[in-house]
Amino acid sequence: MDFLSIITAKKLHQELSAEEISCFAKGAADGSVPDYQLAAMLMAIRLNGMTARETADLTMAMARSGDMLTPDVGGIPVDKHSTGGVGDTTTLVLAPLVAACGGKVLKMSGRGLGHTGGTIDKLESIPGFRVSLPEDEFVEIVRRVGCAVVGQSAQLAPADKRLYALRDVTSTVDAVPLIASSILSKKFASGARAIVLDVKYGSGAIMDSMEGTLALARAMVDIGAQAGRQVTAVISSMEEPLGTHIGNALEVKEAIDILSGRAGGDLKKVSLFLGAQMLVASAVCPDEETALNKLSLALDSGAGLNKLQEMIRAQGGDDRVCEDLSLLPQAPFKIPVPAQGSGFLARMDTAALGRAAQGLGAGRLRKEDVIDPAVGIVMQKRIGDRVNAGEPLAVLHARTKDSAAAAALAVQKAITLSDIPAERPRLIDAVITQSGMRKL
Amino acid sequence: MDFLSIITAKKLHQELSAEEISCFAKGAADGSVPDYQLAAMLMAIRLNGMTARETADLTMAMARSGDMLTPDVGGIPVDKHSTGGVGDTTTLVLAPLVAACGGKVLKMSGRGLGHTGGTIDKLESIPGFRVSLPEDEFVEIVRRVGCAVVGQSAQLAPADKRLYALRDVTSTVDAVPLIASSILSKKFASGARAIVLDVKYGSGAIMDSMEGTLALARAMVDIGAQAGRQVTAVISSMEEPLGTHIGNALEVKEAIDILSGRAGGDLKKVSLFLGAQMLVASAVCPDEETALNKLSLALDSGAGLNKLQEMIRAQGGDDRVCEDLSLLPQAPFKIPVPAQGSGFLARMDTAALGRAAQGLGAGRLRKEDVIDPAVGIVMQKRIGDRVNAGEPLAVLHARTKDSAAAAALAVQKAITLSDIPAERPRLIDAVITQSGMRKL
Repeated sequence: MDFLSIITAKKLHQELSAEEISCFAKGAADGSVPDYQLAAMLMAIRLNGMTARETADLTMAMARSGDMLTPDVGGIPVDKHSTGGVGDTTTLVLAPLVAACGGKVLKMSGRGLGHTGGTIDKLESIPGFRVSLPEDEFVEIVRRVGCAVVGQSAQLAPADKRLYALRDVTSTVDAVPLIASSILSKKFASGARAIVLDVKYGSGAIMDSMEGTLALARAMVDIGAQAGRQVTAVISSMEEPLGTHIGNALEVKEAIDILSGRAGGDLKKVSLFLGAQMLVASAVCPDEETALNKLSLALDSGAGLNKLQEMIRAQGGDDRVCEDLSLLPQAPFKIPVPAQGSGFLARMDTAALGRAAQGLGAGRLRKEDVIDPAVGIVMQKRIGDRVNAGEPLAVLHARTKDSAAAAALAVQKAITLSDIPAERPRLIDAVITQSGMRKL
Repeated sequence: MDFLSIITAKKLHQELSAEEISCFAKGAADGSVPDYQLAAMLMAIRLNGMTARETADLTMAMARSGDMLTPDVGGIPVDKHSTGGVGDTTTLVLAPLVAACGGKVLKMSGRGLGHTGGTIDKLESIPGFRVSLPEDEFVEIVRRVGCAVVGQSAQLAPADKRLYALRDVTSTVDAVPLIASSILSKKFASGARAIVLDVKYGSGAIMDSMEGTLALARAMVDIGAQAGRQVTAVISSMEEPLGTHIGNALEVKEAIDILSGRAGGDLKKVSLFLGAQMLVASAVCPDEETALNKLSLALDSGAGLNKLQEMIRAQGGDDRVCEDLSLLPQAPFKIPVPAQGSGFLARMDTAALGRAAQGLGAGRLRKEDVIDPAVGIVMQKRIGDRVNAGEPLAVLHARTKDSAAAAALAVQKAITLSDIPAERPRLIDAVITQSGMRKL
C-alpha cells in the first residue's frame, strides 16, 4: 500500500479504512515509512481529526504493532492511567489498596518528562526497587500479591514509541485521537482488560480547556467500547498539586503516610475514588459504594500498607521504608518559601510548580537527564487558604542553596493571592463510562 | 528562534511574522531544521493556508536563501514561466521573437518530470547545445543576443530545492502559497524584474479547477506587487496539447516550423500573446497591441528565426538545425494511431497524452531517468475536429514497436469522440496584472 495516498486521503478529509490505518501503524513500527511522511500525516490528523472508528482502529493497530500480552493473573487485569499531574501519586496509594480488596493491578508506568512526575521514578527512590522485571515474574507478582508496577516494555506498541517521539518535535502532541490512541494502545498491548483513566483539567493538565478534557475522556471511553475493553474515565482537578508533596521520594513518603493513616486530603480522596472505579471495572465489586467501603476498610486495617510492603519486597525493594521513612533519600537543605503578601490563595500555576520541582532536580527537561530522588517541594497551603505575609507557602527540599533560591522565586510567582476568599476547585467533576457521563 | 513554536503558530492559524518565515526558509536551506519538522510545517501550510503577506515573505525568504543575481543585461531582465503543459514549447518560439523586438529574455528552465516536458530537455536535443553556462557567459549572451536559456542553478533558492523535494513525498504539492513561492523565488533569485506566468487550466494542468487556477495566478501577481517586481499572469487552456508535437526534438522542430512561417495554430497564438505581455512588462512596448504588431513583424521577417539561430550558436549548438530539420534526432518508427470510431473529437485527457509520450521515452518517471530526445507524438486532430474511423488521431515517433503499441492504446483511450459537434476550448481566458483581471 502506498503511504503517500493515505496522507492524501487524510489531507482531503476522507475517512481512512482499517487497512490504511494499519499500514500507518506498521510503517511507524517497522521503519518502512520515513519520519517526514509520518510527520505530515500527524499534522494532517491534528488538523483534520479522526472519527471515533478511525481512532479505535489506530489504537488497535498500534497495540498490534508489537507484542500483545494475555497474562493470567487470576482475575481481570486492571490498570489505571493519569493524563499527567503534579504531586499526583495516586498509583502508590491505590494499587496496594485495590490489591488488598482482591483486585489484580497490572500496572505499566512511564517516567516523568516535563512538569509531571512518573511513578517509575518515584518507585526507584526506594532502595533496591526493580522497575524492570521479566514478563513472567511481573505476572506472577500480580497473581500472588495483587499488584506490581513496572516500566513500559519497548516490545509493547513500538508504533506508539516512534509516533510519540515525533509528535513531541512536530507540534502534534495536542491531538485528541493521537493522545487517546497513544495511551490506550500501550494498555491494550500490556493485557489490561479494565482501564481507569484519570483525565486532568486545570492549570497543570495536558488539555487546556474543559472542552478538550471531556473530548479526550469521551474518545478513550469510545475506543474501549469498540475494542471490547472496560474503559472508565474520571475527570479530576489539576488546578493545584493533588497531594502536598512534589518530588520522587517525597511522594513515596506521602503515599506511605496516607496508607498509615497519618495523612489525608485530596490525594487520598482521589485515590480511593479511582480505586473504587477499578474494583467496579474489573468486576471485583458490584458498585462504587461497596468498593469505597471495602477500600476504606483496607486502609483503616493497615491491609493496604501491608500490600505495599509485599509489593516492594516482591520487586526487590527495601520494604522497611514503610516503617522507617528516614531510609528514603533525604535532601540536605529544607528551606521554607515565605509568602510575600497576605490574602487568600486564589490560584496556583500548577505546571509552574511542577517545573520548579524539576528545576530542583526532581524531573527531566530531556529524556537523558538524571533525576535527584530526594529533592522536591512540600506545599503548605492550598487554594482557598488564608495566607499571612512571611508564612511559609511551601518547604523546598533542595540539593543546593542556589537551586533552592531559583525554586523559591518560581513558587512565589506560581501562587496568586487575592483579597477575597477563593472558592475551592471541584476535586472530581465527572465519571464517564460506556453508559454515559455522571456529574459529581 | 525555535522552529517548533513556528509550526505551532501555523497549526493554530496564526499569521507568521517575516522573521518566522525567514527562519523556515533558512532552516530548509542550511539543513538546520530536520525533514520531519519541515514536513509538519508544509502540511500545516497546506491545510491552514497563508495570507498574501506571508506568501510574499516566504517567496523573498526562499529567494534570499541562496545567491541573488542582479545581472546587467542592458535592459529589464524578463522571464516567462508556465505551470506545466503538454506539447507546450512557447519558450522556444517567444524567446527569440521577444529578443528580436529588443527584449532581454533571461530564462532559467527546469527539466521535465511527470507528464509535462521541460525546455532544457528540448534544447538538449539540438546537437552541441549547452544548457549549463557560467553566470557571466549567460548574462553576456542575454545582453548581446537578447535571449539565453539555461538550467536552474543549484545556488539559486536552495530552500525551494529542499522543500520541493519534500512536498512531492508528503502530499503537499497542491498548496497555492507553496506553488507560488516555489515558482517566483527562483525567478526573483535569477534576477528577473519582469515575469510573465502562463497559468494553465484544463485536463493537463497542475490545478484541477478554474478556481484553483485563478487563486494561484492571483497569488503570484500579489507576490510581485509586494516584492516590487512586475508579474503578469495569463490564464490559458491545457484542455489539449498546445502544439501538435509532443516530445523533445519534435517540439524543437515545431518551434522552428512556426518561426519559419510553415506552421501556426494555438502554439503560435499563445507564444505571441505571452511574448507581447513580456514586452509590455519589461517596458519595451507601451501596450499589448504595439507589442503584438512588433512580434508579428519579427516573425514574418525571419528576425525571430535568426535570433534562435544566434542563441543556439552562442550556447554551442549546431544552428544549422534551423535550416535542416533532419539534423535533429529522428525516431526509427513513425506509426499512425487510427481512430476506432467516428464522431467529433470532444475531449482529450491531456495529462494521459503526456504520459503516453513519457511511456515512449520522451519524459521521466523518476528524476534519474534518461530521456530519448527523438521520440514522441504528433497529434493529427484537435478538439472539435470531425474524425472518421481509421483516420489517424496521431503519429507516434517510437524507438521500438512495443513501446508504440502501448502508446497507441493510451492515445486512443485519452481521446473521447462524440456524436454532437464539440465546442473548442477558450485558448486564452484572462490576463491578471496588479491593476486587475481582464477577461478575453
